[in-house]
Parts: sequence; C-alpha cells; structure tokens
Amino acid sequence: MAAKQKIVKPSTLPGFMELLPQEQILFNRMMATIRRVYERYGFVPLDTPIIEKSEVLLAKGGGETEKQVYRFMKGDTDLSMRFDLTVPLARFVAQHMNDLTFPFRRYQIGKVYRGEKNQKGRFREFYQCDIDVIGREKLDVATDAEIPAIIYNVFTEIGLPPFVIRLNNRKLMNGLFAHYGVAGRPELLRAIDKLEKIGAEKTRKELEEAGIDGAAIEGIFRFIAIEGTNEDILQALDALGIDNPQFQEGLGELKEVTKLIRAFGVPEEAFTIALKIVRGLDYYTGTVYETLLRDYPEIGSVCSGGRYDNLAEYYTKEKLPGVGISIGLTRLFYQLNEAGILGSDLPSSLSRVLVVPIGDTLETCARVASRLRGTGVVTEVYLEQTKIGKKMNYANKHGIPFVVIIGDEEVSDGYLAVKNMVSGEQHRMTFEEALKVIQA
Amino acid sequence: MAAKQKIVKPSTLPGFMELLPQEQILFNRMMATIRRVYERYGFVPLDTPIIEKSEVLLAKGGGETEKQVYRFMKGDTDLSMRFDLTVPLARFVAQHMNDLTFPFRRYQIGKVYRGEKNQKGRFREFYQCDIDVIGREKLDVATDAEIPAIIYNVFTEIGLPPFVIRLNNRKLMNGLFAHYGVAGRPELLRAIDKLEKIGAEKTRKELEEAGIDGAAIEGIFRFIAIEGTNEDILQALDALGIDNPQFQEGLGELKEVTKLIRAFGVPEEAFTIALKIVRGLDYYTGTVYETLLRDYPEIGSVCSGGRYDNLAEYYTKEKLPGVGISIGLTRLFYQLNEAGILGSDLPSSLSRVLVVPIGDTLETCARVASRLRGTGVVTEVYLEQTKIGKKMNYANKHGIPFVVIIGDEEVSDGYLAVKNMVSGEQHRMTFEEALKVIQA
Repeated sequence: MAAKQKIVKPSTLPGFMELLPQEQILFNRMMATIRRVYERYGFVPLDTPIIEKSEVLLAKGGGETEKQVYRFMKGDTDLSMRFDLTVPLARFVAQHMNDLTFPFRRYQIGKVYRGEKNQKGRFREFYQCDIDVIGREKLDVATDAEIPAIIYNVFTEIGLPPFVIRLNNRKLMNGLFAHYGVAGRPELLRAIDKLEKIGAEKTRKELEEAGIDGAAIEGIFRFIAIEGTNEDILQALDALGIDNPQFQEGLGELKEVTKLIRAFGVPEEAFTIALKIVRGLDYYTGTVYETLLRDYPEIGSVCSGGRYDNLAEYYTKEKLPGVGISIGLTRLFYQLNEAGILGSDLPSSLSRVLVVPIGDTLETCARVASRLRGTGVVTEVYLEQTKIGKKMNYANKHGIPFVVIIGDEEVSDGYLAVKNMVSGEQHRMTFEEALKVIQA
Repeated sequence: MAAKQKIVKPSTLPGFMELLPQEQILFNRMMATIRRVYERYGFVPLDTPIIEKSEVLLAKGGGETEKQVYRFMKGDTDLSMRFDLTVPLARFVAQHMNDLTFPFRRYQIGKVYRGEKNQKGRFREFYQCDIDVIGREKLDVATDAEIPAIIYNVFTEIGLPPFVIRLNNRKLMNGLFAHYGVAGRPELLRAIDKLEKIGAEKTRKELEEAGIDGAAIEGIFRFIAIEGTNEDILQALDALGIDNPQFQEGLGELKEVTKLIRAFGVPEEAFTIALKIVRGLDYYTGTVYETLLRDYPEIGSVCSGGRYDNLAEYYTKEKLPGVGISIGLTRLFYQLNEAGILGSDLPSSLSRVLVVPIGDTLETCARVASRLRGTGVVTEVYLEQTKIGKKMNYANKHGIPFVVIIGDEEVSDGYLAVKNMVSGEQHRMTFEEALKVIQA
C-alpha cells in the first residue's frame, strides 16, 4: 500500500501576479500589441538573463533599489535578479560594442524583480516593456521626437481610453536654476517633482524653508505656471527672455521635438508640453516624457522615460547617450482592471470552433478540425465521451462562438452541422460554406 | 571634478544564453511559431511566477532536480525558482480547480532554472514551451493522438529538417514485465532506457547481471526488436499473443492513437511506433513521445512528453490525469546553430525600409515613415546628421532591403527615390507605387 500523500496547500507569493486564462489572454494581447508597434518602428528584440553577477548588476551601487534586489549565493557565486531592463542593456551594449551598429534600437519585454513593500497594487515580479535608442558619442534630438509617436500608437492600438503624452526638457529647468543662481540644489528638483501631489503652497513653503532666494522662487513658479497650447507655451518661454545657454539649448530642443512629433504622426491633442514634470531625478538630462489617462489621473503615468547622457559609464569609457521609455505592463494591467476599463465577460478560450462528435465519428471530427486549423482557424475537438449537453456547455462556458456537430449523417454525406452559439441558429452546410461563416 | 568612475567588466554568467540581435530575431520567430501553433489547437496561455515558495515548488522533494534548484531566502521567506513548468501547472490547477473547465488545455512558454554542471550546450536558464491537457478524473486516450499533430505542425512551420515522431505506450512494457514475472523491477526500465546509447549486448549483460530470468530477457528483446511500418508493428504485437491485461490495454490504446494521429493530419512518414523508447522513468504511465531529426540523431529528442496518471497529487486529492509535451527551445536553438542548420548571413534588423533624409528634409521623412508604418511596413528613419554614404551603409549592415531617399526635390514634387539594396536599382515613384514595390 502506498504511503498517504501529504498535501501542500497550493498558493503563490504575495506581490506575484498570476492570471486566470481569460485575463491572461487579454494581458498577452496587450503585450503582443506593444511588441508589434515597437517592431514596426525598427526596434530589435533583446532578451538578457534574469540572473546576473551581483558585481555587474549592482555596479552603480547604493540607493533604494539595491535594498530591494533579490540577491543570493549559488555555490560561491554572488547572484542578483534584474530589477530593471536598463542596467542589463547598459551591460549588453558595453559588452558587444563592436558587434552592434549605432544608433542601436532595441526593445525588451521581460519580468523584473523588486522586493517592494507588500501592499495592494505593488508587484515584486512585473513586466517592463522598454525601448531605447543608443548612440555612440552622439544621438540627434530628432530621436526624442519619434518616441512619443511610438507611445501614441501603442496605446491607441491597445485601445486605452483618451490619454495625453506630456513632455518637457530638463535643460530648461536646469538653465533656469543657473539663471537664478540656485544650480546644483537637488532639493529644488525634488520639491518640484512633488508639486502635483502636494500643491503649490506647500512646495513654495518647502523652498522657502530650504533657504531659496525669493526672486528665484518667483521665477521658478512663473516658469512652471506657463500653460496653454504647445505653441503658446513655446512663445511664452521665448518671452521670458532667459539668456542662460542651457535654457536656450533646452528651448531649442523642445521646439525641434515639438515640430517633429507632429510629422511623426502624433495629433496635437495627444501631446502637451508640461513644464513642471521632472521624472527620474538624477538620470534624465534632456527631453522627458510621461503619459496620463485623461479620465483616470489617479493612475499616474502609464509610460515614462526620457533622454540620458551616458548609458553605460559603469561598464565602458565610451560615451553612450540614449533616449528611452518603459511601460510597466503588470501594474498598468492591474490598474486598468481595478478601474473597470478592461471589461467583463471575457472569453476564457481563443477557440473559434469546437468540433463535437455524436457517436463514433471521431476520425471525421479530427479530419475536419485538421482542415480548419490548416486555414488558421483556432479549433478544438471535444474528445471526451459524454452527453451532447455537456459538450455544448463546454463551448458556452468558454465563449467559443461556433460548434460544428458531426454525427453519422454528416460522416456519410460530408456536410457539417454548424451552430452559431450567439444566435443559437444551426444549419447544415459544406466545409467551404462553414469556413466562410466561421471566418466572417 | 567628478571622481573617476570604476569600470566593471561587462559579462554574463556561464550557462545563461544571451543572443545578438540577428540570432534573437530568429529565436523569437521560432518562439512565435510555437505559440501560434499551440494557440491554433485551442490551448490557452498561462504565465506562472518564476519564484514560488520552496515548500510549494519542492513539495515532491528528493531527486537530482532538487539539488539543482536556485533556492534562497528573502527576509524570512524560503524561495525557489521554477525548474520546470509542470510543477507550477500542477499547483495552478489544484489552486484554481473551481475556476477552470476540464479538460483544461494550457500552454506556457517561459524560462526555467537549473544549476546544471557547467559544460558546453548545458544551460542554467532556458526556455521551455509546454502544452498539457488536464482532465478531471479521466481524459480520453483520443487526446494522446492529437499531440503528435501539434508537434508535426510546430516543426514543419519552424522549417526544421526532416524529423520523425516516435511513440510508444508504457503499458505494453509494463504488461510484458508482468507477463514474465519481472514487474516492479525499476532496473529493467533503466537498462532499456539506455539501450540506444550502449547497445543491445551491454543491455543484455546488465539484465543478466541483475538476475533477470533468461526467458524474460529473450521475451523483452523479441518485443523491442519488432520493427517495420506502423501497421506491421501493430500486427506483430497482436501475434505475440501476450494475454496480460495491461499489455492488451496498452496495445488497444496504441491502435486507437495510431488510427487517430492520421486523422489529425500527421503523414505516415512523420511518425513511427518505437517500442524501445521509455522517457521519464517514473512519471509517464501510457503513451510516450519523442521527436528525432532524421539527419541529426546525435541531437537527441527535440520534443518529448507523454501521458501521466495524476498531475497534482501533492496539492490536491482530486485525480487529474493529463498528457503533455515540452520543447526545450534554448537547447534546441543552440544545437541547430551548432549543426549549422540555422543558416548564416541573417539580417540584424526587422526593418523593411530605411528612410534617409538628404539636407533639411526630416519633417517629410517623418511623415513618409509614419504613412509606411500606418500600412504595417517596418520602417526606420536615419535621424543622425552624417554623410549619405554612412546612412546607406547602415541599411547595408543591417540587411534592410529598401532605402527611401528624400531630398529637396522629393519634398517639392512629392515623389520618393526608392533604392532596392539587393539589386542596387533606384527609381523615383509616388508613395503608392513605392508601397507596392516595398510590399512585393
């Protein structure tokens, strides 16, 4: 007699998303759309290992991120799981510099790991969907203008509700700070980064308490208060008359980007210059992006990124400027679902047809299924021996739109009985007629 | 002055495959084909976490696999990285039993982790591409006949060189052992599993040394020596006259599977009954499969699997019989590459068109690129300011077949100069004409 099997309660770890089929189908469809658009813009796929040497992955060191890293020993080797796709990209480009042609356009879609605090909507394993364009020594600002077109097409094709891409250029604010003699004060950027959350009053107070000069505070607030159409904003920036060279460089870039964004096909209502956005405090150096859902601002940015000066300084002495964006797909999916945007009553099957045998007709069913699949129709055959009601119920439960029923009569005369599961109608027809109905 | 940056040598861990773009494009194409075929047979996607509780993932315990697992603590939690996709499937099905409809057909494509010995062609991170059909309490043997059709279509659509699917039924051999009074001797199966590697002589000797009765050895060798067409083999098995009920059950199943495989569209030359194959010593209980490349037998099986009695006994008391297969894509890709089957001179880009500005024509270039992308054409714009020669060279290096050149003349008259990079021919034409040429 076999020993009694001990049963372990099946469960997953908190912070690790796992979806049922109907949700997974939708999730995969979103991921496939992102991949398709990224590829259409000429980005090539990259797939780096999830585990790397800690020495390599944590070369930068320090910061909040390092504390969250999944790091462990295997034998004598100190390993870490990637916490983003940017560090592996930097390592990859530095490692294969001479095998690549620049500008190097890569996308990567993959899971990353962070030991985040355990709370609702926070994930420890999540997908990032990144694109980056990396130049060798230089990368034209025109590239910054192409990125919003990619964001626009991704979210349009995914079918998101109305969204707006907000863009800014970090050189404007840095130049402004220099103009007012408050350059090199990181608390300034940090305060402005919080502006939309805590409001102007508190931000102003914070700046005063940090000992920022009153004229500087006024100047900064006059700057970030500039709003209007994109052309309005550019004109108002000109009118400020700030002669700082970095400010003027940033303004020139912003004008060029704004002009080309339109040529790359982003409609005017889908992007706006937003002078208060900062994003990634110590990383971005020029253009920055974020993307908001107009009717769901509480979700925050669903796609962010920007221009950086030097991708891989920890791995090579070559200067590699770049520009990129990231979509946090796991979090986005979760939030769309929470907000009720994903819809309910989703089919739990990809199948278009269920072939159902009545009696001993399995061979014919298999042949019909094989022909349907040969034309690309997603097809299942109900292979269990059970009552017809249970077979039809399987199609119903999964939301499969057509059932092809094959009994002795169909075997002998070659016709198929095709039932439309939505209308309930059932008709006998030839294979070719059935194919037309099913593919309609 | 900034402190001098310490440079870490960029490298990956041994046993972790990372591909350059031209190989990654090919790898992804293979993966997309596998996914497409799996879906066409009505399998739904599943994406389980890569990390699970050790208690859950290692519920079975023991064995070689457990020693290889990447296992570590994060805080107080004992974690393991998945080493296959079957254990997570078992956990998933047990956990969500009441949310699923049976038979449950799922596919999963994902990375798994094993601390294999460090040697050429062995991977510690590798993709598995699995399908399984899980029944509740029962699962008709007809399902076993559909699996080879999936294998056949996957490898045909991938474009593999000629292959053969070998199948067997474990009940035949188990029944035979019982018939000769040597049931329950695992060394028997182990010896036969090695037969093709070590040869009949050595196997016979091993069995003799293990004290297996001479008549049993003769009977077993007579059985595994049976060869010929599939019909020949089935007739010869009948003619053996073994009246053991398990043997007869296995023979009945093999007949049914063989008959239906053909109906599911697998041509006769692509599958063969191979009575000596065993696969997965203590796991499979009925039909077993393996797939060999006819001209590269040294590669071994590129897709294996079979029927098992009880998927999730460690997580539930429900009986869940199933049948499934797995393609180890990372290893397969490596081996095809080593054998020179993948071809050389692969393009390092997916782009069909490179749009090249001459002079100040970037806006028009962006608009043309946007129109091309709108029709689905994978398009890049060369955005760096450099000599025309370098721009053309970028297309050459990447194997991009068409360059659309836009100078002042093209901006003013709306025509495009389209250069075919293979033939070297260049013609001026309208956008619509260009589109026809490019899509041809």
